[in-house]
Amino acid sequence: MAFVDLVGAGPGDPELLTVRAWRAIREADVVVHDRLVSQQILDLIPAGTERIDVGKARGTVRRPQEAIQRLLVELARRGRRVVRLKGGDPFVFGRGTEELDTCLAAGIECRVVPGISSALAAPASAGVPVTERGIARSFAVVTAETRTQAGLDQLRGAVGVDTLVLMMTATRLRDVVRELIRLGRPASQPAAAIENATRAEQRVVATSLDHLANEVEHHGLGAPMTVVVGEVAARARAVALPEWVDALVA
Amino acid sequence: MAFVDLVGAGPGDPELLTVRAWRAIREADVVVHDRLVSQQILDLIPAGTERIDVGKARGTVRRPQEAIQRLLVELARRGRRVVRLKGGDPFVFGRGTEELDTCLAAGIECRVVPGISSALAAPASAGVPVTERGIARSFAVVTAETRTQAGLDQLRGAVGVDTLVLMMTATRLRDVVRELIRLGRPASQPAAAIENATRAEQRVVATSLDHLANEVEHHGLGAPMTVVVGEVAARARAVALPEWVDALVA
Repeated sequence: MAFVDLVGAGPGDPELLTVRAWRAIREADVVVHDRLVSQQILDLIPAGTERIDVGKARGTVRRPQEAIQRLLVELARRGRRVVRLKGGDPFVFGRGTEELDTCLAAGIECRVVPGISSALAAPASAGVPVTERGIARSFAVVTAETRTQAGLDQLRGAVGVDTLVLMMTATRLRDVVRELIRLGRPASQPAAAIENATRAEQRVVATSLDHLANEVEHHGLGAPMTVVVGEVAARARAVALPEWVDALVA
Repeated sequence: MAFVDLVGAGPGDPELLTVRAWRAIREADVVVHDRLVSQQILDLIPAGTERIDVGKARGTVRRPQEAIQRLLVELARRGRRVVRLKGGDPFVFGRGTEELDTCLAAGIECRVVPGISSALAAPASAGVPVTERGIARSFAVVTAETRTQAGLDQLRGAVGVDTLVLMMTATRLRDVVRELIRLGRPASQPAAAIENATRAEQRVVATSLDHLANEVEHHGLGAPMTVVVGEVAARARAVALPEWVDALVA
C-alpha cells in the first residue's frame, strides 16, 4: 500500500530521534533524506534499505523541491514503504507541507512524525533555555535576511519578543545583527551562536549581540548554525552540560 | 553517584519520547514527574521504580517549585539515579533552568534531555505547520495574559510574527484574542485550538480569530490547550492525518 512517512530526524544526535522515527527508519523500504540529516542517523538505516540523498548536488544544481515530491509519489506508488527523513522537524522550515500536499493529492496515505527542532535543541545544547521564569516569557524563531523587504519585515515582526532564535543566518549574520540593533535590540544583550548543535563536533560562541558577528568569524563558525539573542543567552557560558562541555570554544 | 536527568516527555504520545528519554525512564531509580506527563508515558516506568508526582495537590496547595528542587537534590544525594520528567521540553516554559541551577549548585551532575515541545507538536498534530513557504516565515511562542502590563507586553512583542502560538491561555482566551485584534491581527485570520495534543483524546477547533473563544467555549475545550493563530491555521481543517483524523471535532 502506498505510504509516505514524513519524519523529523531532530538536530543530529541519533538518541534525540523519537521512538516513532527510529522505528520508521528501521522498517522503511526506502529512505529519502536531505543533507541536514547527520551521518550518525544515516548509519541507523539497515544495510538492505535503499537510501536516496536528495540534498546532494547533481551536477551543479540541487534537486528541485518539485522533483523530490514527484520522487516520493513515484516510490510510494511502487508499493514501497517510504520514509522522507528531514533534519529537525518537518513543519519547522522543512517544506514538509509541500511534500504532504503532493502525496495526499496523489491519494497516498501520509503520516507526519514530529522531530526535535534545532530551533529549540540548539540553544538547549549550549545550556540556553528559550524561556526562563522572570527573564524570558516569549520566544520567536525566524529565518531572516536583510536584502528584501520581506526579510526585513520578518525581523521587525519578531524583534519584540524576549528571546530571538535565528535560523539559517550564517552567511548574513553581520547584516542581521546590525538590523536587530537598529530595531532596538540592545547592543550589549547576550547572544550565542551554536554550530552543529548536539553533534560531537558542536561549537558554541557566547558573547554580546554587537560582538557576535566578529566572534563567529574569528572562530570560523558556519552552517548549520543557530543564533540565540536575549538575556537567556548569558547562560551559554554559565552552564556546562556534561556531554557537551568540551564543545564550548568561547 | 549523584545524578539528575532533566527529561522532556514531549506532548503526550509515548512514541514521541526521544530514544534517550525512553532509556532514561527505563533505567531510573526514581522518576519525579508533573501533571503534564501523560498516563501512557507514566505506564512505561518499570513497576520497581519509585515514582513521585510533584504536580499532585497536597491538601489544597501544589508542591512549591523550591520544594521540588530540594527533593531532587535530596534524592540524588542518596545515590539514586533521578529522572525529573517534565511535559514537553524542560527549557520551554518548563522551569528546567531553576531545577538545573539548584542541582548544579549542589554539586550534582545533570543532563538535559530535550523533548518535543507542545508548542510545535500541538499545531502539527492538527495538520498545522508553524512555518510554510510563501505563507509563514516566522513564529513566536508566548504564554500571554492581559491582566498585567508584562502580559500585555508579551502579546505586543510577539504580535508581528507570521504564526503565533499561545500556550496556557485556556482560561483567558477571550481577553487574549481581543487584545491580539486590537494590536492589529486581522479578526478574520485563521485560528485553531488543540486540546490534549497527540493523545487519543485530542480535539481540535478550527475557525477564525474572532470566533475562536466562542467555538472553544461551545465545544468545551480546556487545558492542556495550545492555540495557533495565522494563515497556516487554515490547514487545521484541510489536512487529515490518518492517526488523528477522528479527533477533529470542528
